[in-house]
Amino acid sequence: MIDRLIQRIEETENPAVVGLDPALAMIPQYLRQEKFEQFGKTPKAVAEMFFEFNRLIIDAVADLIPAVKPQIAMYERYGLDGLAAYLRTIEYAKSKGLVVIADIKRGDIASTAAAYAAHIGGVDIEGSYFDPWQEEFITINPYFGIDGIEPFLEVLRRRERGVFILVRTSNPSSGELQDKLLEGLPLYDQVADLVGRWGEGLVGESGYSKVGAVVGATHPEQGVELRRRLPHTFFLVPGYGAQGGKGADLKGFFDRDGRGCIVNSSRGIIAAYQKDAEFGDADSVGPEFTQASRKAVLAMKKDLENAL
Amino acid sequence: MIDRLIQRIEETENPAVVGLDPALAMIPQYLRQEKFEQFGKTPKAVAEMFFEFNRLIIDAVADLIPAVKPQIAMYERYGLDGLAAYLRTIEYAKSKGLVVIADIKRGDIASTAAAYAAHIGGVDIEGSYFDPWQEEFITINPYFGIDGIEPFLEVLRRRERGVFILVRTSNPSSGELQDKLLEGLPLYDQVADLVGRWGEGLVGESGYSKVGAVVGATHPEQGVELRRRLPHTFFLVPGYGAQGGKGADLKGFFDRDGRGCIVNSSRGIIAAYQKDAEFGDADSVGPEFTQASRKAVLAMKKDLENAL
Repeated sequence: MIDRLIQRIEETENPAVVGLDPALAMIPQYLRQEKFEQFGKTPKAVAEMFFEFNRLIIDAVADLIPAVKPQIAMYERYGLDGLAAYLRTIEYAKSKGLVVIADIKRGDIASTAAAYAAHIGGVDIEGSYFDPWQEEFITINPYFGIDGIEPFLEVLRRRERGVFILVRTSNPSSGELQDKLLEGLPLYDQVADLVGRWGEGLVGESGYSKVGAVVGATHPEQGVELRRRLPHTFFLVPGYGAQGGKGADLKGFFDRDGRGCIVNSSRGIIAAYQKDAEFGDADSVGPEFTQASRKAVLAMKKDLENAL
Repeated sequence: MIDRLIQRIEETENPAVVGLDPALAMIPQYLRQEKFEQFGKTPKAVAEMFFEFNRLIIDAVADLIPAVKPQIAMYERYGLDGLAAYLRTIEYAKSKGLVVIADIKRGDIASTAAAYAAHIGGVDIEGSYFDPWQEEFITINPYFGIDGIEPFLEVLRRRERGVFILVRTSNPSSGELQDKLLEGLPLYDQVADLVGRWGEGLVGESGYSKVGAVVGATHPEQGVELRRRLPHTFFLVPGYGAQGGKGADLKGFFDRDGRGCIVNSSRGIIAAYQKDAEFGDADSVGPEFTQASRKAVLAMKKDLENAL
């Protein structure tokens, strides 16, 4: 799957992933009204809006991007209805040829991690196989150390799937723990070394491992250092756009061939119409709001090209 | 909710929580067969087994325990059907007066954590309020620092709910990161200090904060140290029983009045019949398997009493 992701990036010439993280405040009024009328002011209505919102955006940008990254929390917020919209979004994205990076950040002790590993590994029920989550990559949390990671590696050894392990997150307080020096090395570097080690033996033809790392765009100097430290680790880079990361900061996250990472933008793409004078606001905009997303994807592509 | 949990512990005279973490391998054959016949070998069938298994156990032990701790991963493994069984389990446990500690270990950056906070805070949909997850306490992951925690604290300031933040987990490799010295102090102590600080201002009449900590039973000396370090922080203690923790190791996790923590056992209680010669194995046992769970709860209660 890492090889397929890299191939898709080469085909689209765009190392950008669109974060499908819908929120009620992003939904244009025409769509909001339609679903509230149909389903009342309920989680079901919001879930229907989210799927329709995502579907329109996917239709508008699928030819420009290699992958999408739905953030499960945005759907989980609305319970089972929300999660049903999450699953429909994944299925729809895959039907359009997009790679799906599911941002789920799960992590637990071994026996529990083995259950979470069903996200990429599916489940066997007395000989019948099911893949209830349909995800291709997932993000995972390293706090438990190797025995919380091993169940995911076990899946990667037998299936074309991938993981991105949190190394350096993009949020302002991430340094509260991650930057602390831990036996002379910052915590995030300690985690990085573990991620590099865990990914050995899972390197694909592209030279990159199925075990990737999350490295926030908001820490450019650390990105450079981590790229050097982890030559076979592909980076998923959040924090571009709305969170403050810029293309010019990201050169060092890529390898010498301009590969090695994929940069995520969520709000900056999916809610682009709200900041683009051409499209009006949530009250007046129609389904053409997705053209603002297309414009934003093209601008992001250019911004990343300029960096390289 | 922390005051209510402590009150329930006093009423039952039992600081034990039963982990409702079902797995297919624990389900007695009679129940397995019934649901497979009804629903085929599907996630739906497993979900129906899990709910029925939980319901029978709850009925057998509800008068002895203050709380249950369903581990969401065990249900999430089976997709939306599994999560529906999770929700039914929570509703059923609450209908029996049990406090529900949902082991979800979510954690992310601020905007995403705000979405996960719906687990305890519910959602407002244009003035209509919904509580899609019905949980009373949840576990959360501290890796993101304060801005990933703040959205949960915001809920705790206005609702009777609680959180347990991972400090020292019970698994064998937990020390890989958590024991590393971070500016002279082990990572878990650094996290502990943050947890203590985050919980200030949220202390209830019991003297304990709505912000608790997860401290594994498998590290007794660290439990003593953390109890001293965090006088107002209630501990959720996993790792008892199947993972190796014993009552005698846990004295130091409690305060001088014998309060301050609740100890979890999952497999050791819910799958007790598999290790109890009186009840036979999964192939032969009937619904009386829950009496093995009741016996195990009583033995655990006694083991904890002896420790105090």
